[in-house]
Amino acid sequence: MLEYTKLGYKPKKTDLVAEYYAEPAKKVSYEYLCEQIAAESSIGTWTTISTMNKNVANKLKPKVFFIDKKKKAIKIAYPQELFEEGNMPQILSSIAGNIFGMGILKNLRLLDVTFPKKLVDSFPGPRYGIAGIRKLLRVKKRPLVGTIVKPKVGLDEKQHAHVAYEAWVGGLDIVKDDENLSSMSFNNFKKRMIETYKARKKAEKITGEVKVYMPNVTAETEEMLRRAKLVDDLGGRYVMIDILTAGWAALQTLRKRTRLVIHAHRAMHAAITRNAKHGISMLVIAKISRLIGVDQLHIGTAHVGKMEGSSREIQLIEEEIEKSYITANEKELILEQDWFDIKPVFAVASGGLSPLSIPDVMDRMGSEIIMQFGGGVHGHPEGTRKGAVAVRQALAATMQEKDLEIFCLANPELSKAIEKWGKKK
Amino acid sequence: MLEYTKLGYKPKKTDLVAEYYAEPAKKVSYEYLCEQIAAESSIGTWTTISTMNKNVANKLKPKVFFIDKKKKAIKIAYPQELFEEGNMPQILSSIAGNIFGMGILKNLRLLDVTFPKKLVDSFPGPRYGIAGIRKLLRVKKRPLVGTIVKPKVGLDEKQHAHVAYEAWVGGLDIVKDDENLSSMSFNNFKKRMIETYKARKKAEKITGEVKVYMPNVTAETEEMLRRAKLVDDLGGRYVMIDILTAGWAALQTLRKRTRLVIHAHRAMHAAITRNAKHGISMLVIAKISRLIGVDQLHIGTAHVGKMEGSSREIQLIEEEIEKSYITANEKELILEQDWFDIKPVFAVASGGLSPLSIPDVMDRMGSEIIMQFGGGVHGHPEGTRKGAVAVRQALAATMQEKDLEIFCLANPELSKAIEKWGKKK
Repeated sequence: MLEYTKLGYKPKKTDLVAEYYAEPAKKVSYEYLCEQIAAESSIGTWTTISTMNKNVANKLKPKVFFIDKKKKAIKIAYPQELFEEGNMPQILSSIAGNIFGMGILKNLRLLDVTFPKKLVDSFPGPRYGIAGIRKLLRVKKRPLVGTIVKPKVGLDEKQHAHVAYEAWVGGLDIVKDDENLSSMSFNNFKKRMIETYKARKKAEKITGEVKVYMPNVTAETEEMLRRAKLVDDLGGRYVMIDILTAGWAALQTLRKRTRLVIHAHRAMHAAITRNAKHGISMLVIAKISRLIGVDQLHIGTAHVGKMEGSSREIQLIEEEIEKSYITANEKELILEQDWFDIKPVFAVASGGLSPLSIPDVMDRMGSEIIMQFGGGVHGHPEGTRKGAVAVRQALAATMQEKDLEIFCLANPELSKAIEKWGKKK
Repeated sequence: MLEYTKLGYKPKKTDLVAEYYAEPAKKVSYEYLCEQIAAESSIGTWTTISTMNKNVANKLKPKVFFIDKKKKAIKIAYPQELFEEGNMPQILSSIAGNIFGMGILKNLRLLDVTFPKKLVDSFPGPRYGIAGIRKLLRVKKRPLVGTIVKPKVGLDEKQHAHVAYEAWVGGLDIVKDDENLSSMSFNNFKKRMIETYKARKKAEKITGEVKVYMPNVTAETEEMLRRAKLVDDLGGRYVMIDILTAGWAALQTLRKRTRLVIHAHRAMHAAITRNAKHGISMLVIAKISRLIGVDQLHIGTAHVGKMEGSSREIQLIEEEIEKSYITANEKELILEQDWFDIKPVFAVASGGLSPLSIPDVMDRMGSEIIMQFGGGVHGHPEGTRKGAVAVRQALAATMQEKDLEIFCLANPELSKAIEKWGKKK
């Protein structure tokens, strides 16, 4: 009654398909491992039980339909009835839950998931998406550019607003809080909002451009909603949340309760995503984030900045969050995904970038991206404003396919940046 | 201005101390790695910046005060001003955030954290704790015993309530939903509550014992709170939440909004905790859970059941969540922790246990525990009720320090369990 392996089974449109890298512990056969993973993530347990019945088994039993022992890759098709619509924690507790801790395996990694239409439709996806954000900012083609106020924490409310002002006036579209800046003893959330939105208004008047501030509202859910409401009341357009440290239940709540653009930072993700043999891939984290409905998501810098993450991996993630249909790619272990009516997410490149990184980042990630510069703006020898100017210069050069080293001759701010950080950062 | 390493610095009472296993990438010096970890988790960035000032640096700069290159262990003391009181996501975004993804390191694991008094006091801790739960259940000394309804999902509301009834009448204190059972197409949350609380009332009348049901309320935060309120309205005493898949922000909200006992399941934890060199230790997850205020927490079975986790590691976790003061233990890389007024959490052993596991589990984890049996109850050859009887028999034998093989001679239900699962499970 309870055998789960059915090689060659063709998943139904109503199945959720999960693909794992699975490595058995010593003395455990690959076949047994597959059976146990399928059981523990659905209806089974470690022994035969009196309370199981044929109806349950027939209706809800998943099928292990693909095993590649060489790559240690397996695919399991789960009937969608195993999952509660619109409940991401429940879906993860099933396909990314207890199984990671099973004694019979050495490593297990959730590589990819295909969500069936019913589950896709049960989540809202981004409210704005790429097109909505471009419209809001009135920027049609170029990448958006922004900064994270630095130092990460330590400035008071007025100092913070001043740094933001300098960045906006210098030419950046976006100013973002750092992930560890929330409401601090030396920098109160409400006061920071008041000061920073005042600075934004001034900067918009001077530049004639739309400027956005992405305040970090990450906190206990109700407090987070209060902060998001305050932002809305003050005329803010964005909120930022740390999706892994806050968690999926709170992210779903924020998506439901705010009408603002949601910027998703991903602190802690690498604790889960970095080991190629264990944990959950960033691709899956990105898909979950798109389903729940973040508008912007940090996905890495494709080996340009300070964070790890290969160029190819990041391209695949970017495609996954931007396209409306993903074709299966057996070689790279990518599953098919129809995104139906779910909007695309704006990919964010951030972490150790300077103006000099722009050509490389755009070469690898295209122009449908947001680039965030922290030290790469405030570390400019002549300060934040000139750092922002240098970013816009490097961006203009790259959009015009001109070499930075030549373009900088007529652009002293970029020239100074090159002096400090060299041609290649 | 920005050197973080200060060996021999003695952490202040107001510092948060974090201990990491840190392994540099190729060609990166250990000293440089330590500096960068301290910087990225606090006020620094990858380059010098114009916006830094001496006040910020002096007040907020953390200190790397201990380096053991052989063990690859480092300790960092962070001024408590770096953290927002009562905001667990913010604390984690700092000390367990971006640093896991830094290109200059190969592996990083957050091993332990000492929270200073101010931060400890900013979280409520468990509402009930061990003493409160024992009082509620009127069980003074013995471990509590319970079951998870099996199959994990698939039964309808009435079938579920019937299995629960059988388990209670057979002698178990607790019936718990499985982690992937929430509100399903075949088993609606509200209907399940109504049926199961009806069954509980009957079982309490027949047995004269207090029985508890731990329904899984894990969902988007507001939906979760609605379910918790329904449970309360129906006379429930407990809610269960999956702390990792729901997330910390939602857990904090649940603690604030429900007056019921909180049972914490930990599906997905092993994606983060299992690799000894990377991620976050279960010890840290357990400390966070205690601070936020779960009353009961799954910590493993000390190598008795189906899940990994060494016996010693689980003893250390149990001490951490039960004691009011933890002494520093250099050898095992355990930091000091004063828990001040935070109540102790009841440790839960669950995963592949049968009645035969009881002597081993109690030998390793003591009697201040809750043991949960899934297949080990419903897999009994004569069904759930007899499985529950066998658990109580094995528990009685162990409390009386009698051998199961002898005790079973007068206890046929235990005898049947031994026939199926052998002396050692």
